[in-house]
Amino acid sequence: MSTKADTRQHLLDTAATMFHTGSYSGVGIAGICDQAGVSKGSFFHFFPSKRDLALAVADQFRQRIGETLVKEGFSTQYSPLARFDRFAEALYAFQKTQTEEHGHLPGCPFGNLALEQATQDDVIRMKVDSYLSVLGNQFRQTIAEAVRCGELPEVDEKATADAMLSYVEGIQLLAKARNDPEVIRRLGPGLKSIRIFSDG
Amino acid sequence: MSTKADTRQHLLDTAATMFHTGSYSGVGIAGICDQAGVSKGSFFHFFPSKRDLALAVADQFRQRIGETLVKEGFSTQYSPLARFDRFAEALYAFQKTQTEEHGHLPGCPFGNLALEQATQDDVIRMKVDSYLSVLGNQFRQTIAEAVRCGELPEVDEKATADAMLSYVEGIQLLAKARNDPEVIRRLGPGLKSIRIFSDG
Repeated sequence: MSTKADTRQHLLDTAATMFHTGSYSGVGIAGICDQAGVSKGSFFHFFPSKRDLALAVADQFRQRIGETLVKEGFSTQYSPLARFDRFAEALYAFQKTQTEEHGHLPGCPFGNLALEQATQDDVIRMKVDSYLSVLGNQFRQTIAEAVRCGELPEVDEKATADAMLSYVEGIQLLAKARNDPEVIRRLGPGLKSIRIFSDG
Repeated sequence: MSTKADTRQHLLDTAATMFHTGSYSGVGIAGICDQAGVSKGSFFHFFPSKRDLALAVADQFRQRIGETLVKEGFSTQYSPLARFDRFAEALYAFQKTQTEEHGHLPGCPFGNLALEQATQDDVIRMKVDSYLSVLGNQFRQTIAEAVRCGELPEVDEKATADAMLSYVEGIQLLAKARNDPEVIRRLGPGLKSIRIFSDG
């Protein structure tokens, strides 16, 4: 592996932890460079701006969450509805480990970025929305399977998927406000209860 | 009304809008003073720190939301479950108006502050948690009524209230990520579907 690729990855990992355990606005390029032991010149070689770095960090999170949480939660060896419980359990385990490591429950990196930046930066907002939609689409497929096999009644599949996505963000928000991963464990089973029906 | 009280209220209102439509970290005392046309000396006379101002802003939001959204949503002339629909409709109307006024959907002021500051400032985190709990308690009372009158089965009332609170935060988060108040209108009816049962 080239040193250049190592430096880029080191900046990404440093920023990922700083954004996730702090906030986007609260962390500056100088602070990231200090923490990573990388010069500003080198930083700007890899990332033209803090926003470009934030988007790269979000993309890395999306990829890692896809390979871990989503893969683990949505294994097709379980019934469609049981997968929502498994996903919630995996989310609990993830936030619990993060809390033990950092002393504070960091919440969802996409949710954090959305609430902090959505009113100020449409590029970040739209990227976060697209990453949230990846999870929403996984939910929607799973809901469709649950309807086909009779585990769920005929719900509005798209709206119910968005509702479940909202719930997943909401329980992480409450857990962060209480700094308590047990909130996710206790509320996780509610995920599969959510239903939205078409008009009428 | 004394000029002093006017100045304090003007600072509060200016900061409330700036925090709500921007972010807490992204707004500085100098910027608030500039926007309000108030000197820094005067600022520090009323608020020893930005955190004190943020807590006063959050308290004002809690009070106003209690007098509008919560009062409107939980009017006892409707059945307990119907109140959740009414609350969601009031929330939609509020965020829609805010979006039209500011060009961006600002989301829940408490949720915003929680996700931005919870890992960094325990005083703010605990205050936000306590304000969220006021709404959670309203939900819990309404759920208990719904169980008594047979509109809901015997759920875990405390967990279901927390789950509904999470959902309310989550649909505002998704709406903010999409900058679209219609998300709240479409997902609002899912609020009353959430149920968490005691173990077993």
